[in-house]
Amino acid sequence: MIEQTENWKDQFRYQSVEQHIMGLIESGTLGRGDKLPSLRTLSRTMSLSISTISQAYVELEKKGVVESRPRSGFFVRASSHRLPAPTRCDPTPAEPKRVSRNKLILTVLETVGNKEIVPLGVICPGTELLPGKSMARIMNQVVRENADTSLAYETVSGNPELRRQLAFQALERGDRFGPDDMIITNGAIEAVYITLRSLTRPGDIVCIQSPSYYCFLQLLETLGLRVVEISSCPNYGIDPAELREVLDKYDIRACIFSPNFNNPDGSLTPDDAKKEIVSMLAERDIPLVEDDVAGDLHFGPVRPATFKHFDERGLVVLCSSFSKTIAPGYRIGWMVPGRFRDKALEIKATTNVCGASPTQMAVAEFLRQGLYERHIKRLRAAFAKQADTMHLHMGRHFPPGTRVTRPQGGMVLWVELPESVDSVKYFYAAKAEGVGIAPGSIFSTQNKFNNFIRLSCGGAWTPEIENGLSVLGDIATGMAR
Amino acid sequence: MIEQTENWKDQFRYQSVEQHIMGLIESGTLGRGDKLPSLRTLSRTMSLSISTISQAYVELEKKGVVESRPRSGFFVRASSHRLPAPTRCDPTPAEPKRVSRNKLILTVLETVGNKEIVPLGVICPGTELLPGKSMARIMNQVVRENADTSLAYETVSGNPELRRQLAFQALERGDRFGPDDMIITNGAIEAVYITLRSLTRPGDIVCIQSPSYYCFLQLLETLGLRVVEISSCPNYGIDPAELREVLDKYDIRACIFSPNFNNPDGSLTPDDAKKEIVSMLAERDIPLVEDDVAGDLHFGPVRPATFKHFDERGLVVLCSSFSKTIAPGYRIGWMVPGRFRDKALEIKATTNVCGASPTQMAVAEFLRQGLYERHIKRLRAAFAKQADTMHLHMGRHFPPGTRVTRPQGGMVLWVELPESVDSVKYFYAAKAEGVGIAPGSIFSTQNKFNNFIRLSCGGAWTPEIENGLSVLGDIATGMAR
Repeated sequence: MIEQTENWKDQFRYQSVEQHIMGLIESGTLGRGDKLPSLRTLSRTMSLSISTISQAYVELEKKGVVESRPRSGFFVRASSHRLPAPTRCDPTPAEPKRVSRNKLILTVLETVGNKEIVPLGVICPGTELLPGKSMARIMNQVVRENADTSLAYETVSGNPELRRQLAFQALERGDRFGPDDMIITNGAIEAVYITLRSLTRPGDIVCIQSPSYYCFLQLLETLGLRVVEISSCPNYGIDPAELREVLDKYDIRACIFSPNFNNPDGSLTPDDAKKEIVSMLAERDIPLVEDDVAGDLHFGPVRPATFKHFDERGLVVLCSSFSKTIAPGYRIGWMVPGRFRDKALEIKATTNVCGASPTQMAVAEFLRQGLYERHIKRLRAAFAKQADTMHLHMGRHFPPGTRVTRPQGGMVLWVELPESVDSVKYFYAAKAEGVGIAPGSIFSTQNKFNNFIRLSCGGAWTPEIENGLSVLGDIATGMAR
Repeated sequence: MIEQTENWKDQFRYQSVEQHIMGLIESGTLGRGDKLPSLRTLSRTMSLSISTISQAYVELEKKGVVESRPRSGFFVRASSHRLPAPTRCDPTPAEPKRVSRNKLILTVLETVGNKEIVPLGVICPGTELLPGKSMARIMNQVVRENADTSLAYETVSGNPELRRQLAFQALERGDRFGPDDMIITNGAIEAVYITLRSLTRPGDIVCIQSPSYYCFLQLLETLGLRVVEISSCPNYGIDPAELREVLDKYDIRACIFSPNFNNPDGSLTPDDAKKEIVSMLAERDIPLVEDDVAGDLHFGPVRPATFKHFDERGLVVLCSSFSKTIAPGYRIGWMVPGRFRDKALEIKATTNVCGASPTQMAVAEFLRQGLYERHIKRLRAAFAKQADTMHLHMGRHFPPGTRVTRPQGGMVLWVELPESVDSVKYFYAAKAEGVGIAPGSIFSTQNKFNNFIRLSCGGAWTPEIENGLSVLGDIATGMAR
């Protein structure tokens, strides 16, 4: 394993070489035993140094994709097959259901923060990828410069400079809202909570993606809401046609969708589908709660749009956070509540008045100093690389019939195991071996994902992760028999 | 005005002289025109230096209580009368009511944080009394020593060291619970919110004190709960006999009481009444939400007990915070949920997962270094002094018929104006003159407190406060005609 370089540009360069070669293999251009392009050739065609190409080839060899033969060059290995992507997208929406997954979810959450467990079950960036030192320096700066105000209450809507910085970010991706349109929350989950409290009463029906982030299910359960699930397809996210059917059939009071790299299936709903969905809901006056926590984590060059971008009637409530990018423990989220602002402020004020001052000040200063842009580029590259490496490794260790998503962003892999595998039993078996996973069944009120598991690709590649994946492959192989 | 001394011991000393003299005046021992004891005499009887006594006499002169006559000494002035305390305690509990005070409350809250307004309406310690520099130093220390973990999620129940320190504090006042019995929350209001979400459903009846902290009313309204109010008397707080009547008459699902220096009337429910109340509720299996945010702010030598202290069945949920003592903007509260712990953890997790890490770490370290004890002593002395000074000043500026509480702790004065004064009109008139107050009517669902206002005594005595009180007196005089 090449030492993780401090310079993300280098990392990005040799990663692009790896991706190029993987593309040639997957498209069939390069088959088993074929020789890779020479270092000199590829250096010329990709306009990269020979040492970068060489570094990438060595990396591919360590992943077992290629092998070097003395004095001959690099060749495609036999076992470098990729697992296919899951295909199942059940298009029939289920009847409204009461949610009752809390007990299983709490059992899964018990493994969170347990340092003895290989952290493939938790969706949280590895600390080695987070800006610990910069944030410590900045925190020191802001509390010294504001010894008094950092102890004082913020306004209910949150630190003005933080909201201003967030509005700048939004402007850069083409979203039209200002600092006064936002409310700072304790993480995105609080933003979703405030929105649901503002919009719904117990017994109301909310439409969600299937699979959907289990914390949403847990929240819906504690609020006494019912859900209708529509399929989220790893390839294209939410299908507007299926949503239309559901809206015609049920009295939906709100939707909660994660269009950009949905947790757990990593799906990306295309921008034109987003536009269609926003307009469809606007016709019916139905609010849309948008979870955009992974929106900045696109592996490709272009940031996908938000639902909010297409919102002309203030019906989309954009919810996001820095928990997946800067600092999970700072609990900095935000919402753009649109026409529900007054009610949202009231719920925020009566829940906990406002967020903590020093953490808001520190994140505002991190953004103001322009550190976010550079950091997020590095993070994207790291997550893309980790997803790729895990994919390759799983190809060698998981049984036939296993399918894995190839996400275009985010930090999750959604794995479909052979049908005979029960993911809850699998969860306990993996836990007994010291490896954390999230079982598919907690991501839906139905039993559609019983043979699915979710893995995190938000850390760095370590011997523990490598070994953990091998263990998971062995368990799957045993259970698939 | 004597410059505020850095040394709280000195402050405490000459304050004790002031209190001694005030006691002599109020008891009638010293009447109008009487000569005060000579510096030498008092120095001997109180075992304090002549300069301390002299400083106190000068202070009393500046407050207008006494006057110095050249070569004669100090004499009691004519106008140094104290306003009496409010007496009204309506013993008839009202029918259960839906709460609908939110709009007025939000208007009042708009003045919060407005630097143009004299801050007599906000219950928040003045920044000059808070440990800004110590906290900045400690925050710097904890984020540098924990650059990685300060970015990471805390457990749902909160930072273990903070809970350990809080358990030590509890042990010192004789409460029996450990670190694992607590959950850290974003302020006490979130603790109350989590408890109500755990215990009640919309439409349920909750019993509260009257008057009661308006944020509780606001919270009850947003949760769709109904309330029954029982009288809170400035002199003795909650009357167990009156509570018994209410419990016999209505199906009460929970009580929310602030036994120690209730906001707004400052009342202290005696410890034997607390014991009786806890046992009465235990017989009926009714949970008691205890707000103890002002418990550490006793002016006398003994910290009053908590309800929790008498709880043998896990029915009391103790809620408190450091928002009135260390740092409002750190949003550090906690709860001891007793038998409702599982449900409370679930609500906490689905509302915002956990509190911010750096602020929890910093407060834990502040406690661990033993800085709280010294700080809170200073704060108590400052609040007691401010209450006293405001009292004296109001005696000269408010119209006859005005009554003011003489709290034994906390940071509020509860003022009964002549009956003809409408506190909402008064609020707007004061706001127009640049002075913040809280109108009595927001502290109850009934119209019992229309001629009451609440003033904060949590700052230091400044010309702005002095002038603000004079303005308030003039407005009251005008409206009382």
